[in-house]
Amino acid sequence: MFALLDDALVAHVGVNVGDHPVVLPVAFAVDPDGPDDEGTLYIHGSVAARWLTGAESTTICVTVTELDGLVAARSGFHHSMNYRSVVAIGPARIVRDPDEKAHALALTVDHMVPGRSATLRASTRKELAATSVLAVALREASMKKRAEGPVDDPEDVEAGVWGGVIPLRRVSSGPVSGADSHADVPADVVARAASFA
Amino acid sequence: MFALLDDALVAHVGVNVGDHPVVLPVAFAVDPDGPDDEGTLYIHGSVAARWLTGAESTTICVTVTELDGLVAARSGFHHSMNYRSVVAIGPARIVRDPDEKAHALALTVDHMVPGRSATLRASTRKELAATSVLAVALREASMKKRAEGPVDDPEDVEAGVWGGVIPLRRVSSGPVSGADSHADVPADVVARAASFA
Repeated sequence: MFALLDDALVAHVGVNVGDHPVVLPVAFAVDPDGPDDEGTLYIHGSVAARWLTGAESTTICVTVTELDGLVAARSGFHHSMNYRSVVAIGPARIVRDPDEKAHALALTVDHMVPGRSATLRASTRKELAATSVLAVALREASMKKRAEGPVDDPEDVEAGVWGGVIPLRRVSSGPVSGADSHADVPADVVARAASFA
Repeated sequence: MFALLDDALVAHVGVNVGDHPVVLPVAFAVDPDGPDDEGTLYIHGSVAARWLTGAESTTICVTVTELDGLVAARSGFHHSMNYRSVVAIGPARIVRDPDEKAHALALTVDHMVPGRSATLRASTRKELAATSVLAVALREASMKKRAEGPVDDPEDVEAGVWGGVIPLRRVSSGPVSGADSHADVPADVVARAASFA
């Protein structure tokens, strides 16, 4: 589970707004040794984002999925996907402790580019005040994984239809410096881009 | 929006179960000319999946996200991601018409591998009876997109810190035939794998 949470970059968080759920894509970070049972998953957003601040103390669901391949079976029914997913359900805790909040935001930057947070200036008080961080325990988290070829009916296999997998993975063509960026690409960014090869 | 729904392969569907939402990754298909306003998005699952059948007539949220890059800004605060997402909210309709159901399942196969459904045997009555298909109108759908470099504070740009983007895309190493598959890889599968180059 922690390997998937390390590989994946986007979480889909579901919160109830009135009588229905809303599901939004967010960046996230995980602290396996965080203050919550079984580790803490952090998401963040603007303090103006009412779906986030309004979620305090409600039960939310955070789902992280990585698609690893398309499974082309011999029948429509057995078509599938190879994937890994974690579904974590629990009460949303707004992080108010300044140290935990700064830690969660640094972890989020480092999840995108390992090591980068230490190379940047500290967040200002204004930036921290403008950001809400929400924590969910990984206590009620379930992991699912499919990583195999098609599972077909024997008749369809005997009929000689092709079945197999189209494996998928994420790659990068390498860092692109901003138009106003004249410094050399730092080693952590080069390494991160290379990690998607 | 339809271009994103064409590119993306996994949707995250949020349904309320009791007092909280559950968010699950699913395959999906879109019929821009479907029976619902602004087009229909279909998801499916086992009739035994209570989160799906229990969602009938409730308002659900289906979110489709493609991650296009990591935006490494000059401050933690301005780190971001380049992405495209659609959030569709609406009442879930269980598809009971047999023709619409077969059409939705064929669209789902063809979304994975364009053209493949026509090369496969028809679904059996037993398979159709074991599958629930759920439709959501694309009427209340909002699209978001970020596709640019970091937007930083002038002081951080002047300080000479590097900022830029790590572009990301999905590729395939090519089709892998099942161990019990002795036919040539069909042209539609070859083309689909090549589309991820």
